[in-house]
Amino acid sequence: MITIIGLIDFPLINKGDDLGRIIVETARKQDIIIEENDVIVVSQKIVSKAEGLTVNLKEVNPSELAKHIAAQTNRDPRHVEIILRESNTIVKMKNNHLIVETKHGFICANAGVDKSNVEGEEVISVLPLDSDKSASRIRHRILRITKKNPAVIITDTWGRPWRLGQVDFAIGVSGMNPFRNYRGERDMFGYMLRVTNIAVADELASAAELVKGKSKGVPVAIIRGFDFIKGRGKAKKMIRPQKDDLFR
Amino acid sequence: MITIIGLIDFPLINKGDDLGRIIVETARKQDIIIEENDVIVVSQKIVSKAEGLTVNLKEVNPSELAKHIAAQTNRDPRHVEIILRESNTIVKMKNNHLIVETKHGFICANAGVDKSNVEGEEVISVLPLDSDKSASRIRHRILRITKKNPAVIITDTWGRPWRLGQVDFAIGVSGMNPFRNYRGERDMFGYMLRVTNIAVADELASAAELVKGKSKGVPVAIIRGFDFIKGRGKAKKMIRPQKDDLFR
Repeated sequence: MITIIGLIDFPLINKGDDLGRIIVETARKQDIIIEENDVIVVSQKIVSKAEGLTVNLKEVNPSELAKHIAAQTNRDPRHVEIILRESNTIVKMKNNHLIVETKHGFICANAGVDKSNVEGEEVISVLPLDSDKSASRIRHRILRITKKNPAVIITDTWGRPWRLGQVDFAIGVSGMNPFRNYRGERDMFGYMLRVTNIAVADELASAAELVKGKSKGVPVAIIRGFDFIKGRGKAKKMIRPQKDDLFR
Repeated sequence: MITIIGLIDFPLINKGDDLGRIIVETARKQDIIIEENDVIVVSQKIVSKAEGLTVNLKEVNPSELAKHIAAQTNRDPRHVEIILRESNTIVKMKNNHLIVETKHGFICANAGVDKSNVEGEEVISVLPLDSDKSASRIRHRILRITKKNPAVIITDTWGRPWRLGQVDFAIGVSGMNPFRNYRGERDMFGYMLRVTNIAVADELASAAELVKGKSKGVPVAIIRGFDFIKGRGKAKKMIRPQKDDLFR
């Protein structure tokens, strides 16, 4: 059995805040003591805020390219300017959508640049510079405070081609293998499973979203009872290499 | 808090089996009584088996097109023949991958035609004809037996462009809205959320996979404590219409 617990009454996060400590203390207030094999799932937004990765659009001077794309996609040119700064390349621009490869290598809409749940009328947040390192820092703080070594996943909300609606996926992982590989194992009838390599970090991200919501102020969930593989692991390793990718 | 419980010791499923009854009885054996707001998440494979949707490759005579594609993608021509029969069109064929639009409209690898966890050396399964109807049938059986009205989701395991590994998504839904729409709601700081429409049925599918696994014989999970929106809803509505799709 797996349980997923959302941390309620989570404080507002500001630049420089010690997220690991705040997670431990907020959990304690609702009588949750972090355990060794918990998975702590943290929304990107509070990580970016703690790392000071917000931008006030009033201070942004958009380039000619940004203005051009903004006109084509019906957007604020300053917002587009920030998206371009966060991107390696534009993968697809159509129907007001802007799908890019971020400087980290993720393929997603708007490079993860987002307005929601950020204070300030024209203030937006950008993705952490290295979400795997951010996850590692949070994990090590929790380990130091609690002497327990959970896994930590940082998530963002992504659209998908071909399917409507968004789900949460992992953009940072620490302390666990983000995959569960069945290749070479046998099914119930002895047939060898050839291709199954489950992206459990993405499934954990999606599971956690079910208790987090978008408007409730629940940016962290604890998943308990999932039998993950401890050890090194990075969300970076979940990016499909371009040579193996069919859709770019 | 959400809990996810895998149904263990699930019997092998044969054509004509009453899945709704078997789910209720298997749950009871581990002291789980299905409740009104449970979400019952069922792997496609047992639905296909109960509906008799298996094919013995020994009886398949591949077309010239199937032979041609099989040679190009390093596959069994009879397997390709079944994939083509299940497909409206081929979306992408590259690096031994075969991404198609199924006759239901889903875009996925191999039209969901799969060998794993099907008895018989050369027997494969195909997707249900209408997984929303299959979900509805299971839900109505459970309702009739238990007088409780849960939601039912049928899932399959899907790869994603740009990301490695697979996750479970919903291919059939009954008794719930597969989305949770935040458009027009306000975030913590009063900013109106403009685009967020969470595909909760996909997130529930992924969450359930965490307890199901591929080799353990746990084809059904019960998710308890998720506050979903009751009512009509179909996985078909989760297919992005071609005109709004950027990647086909």
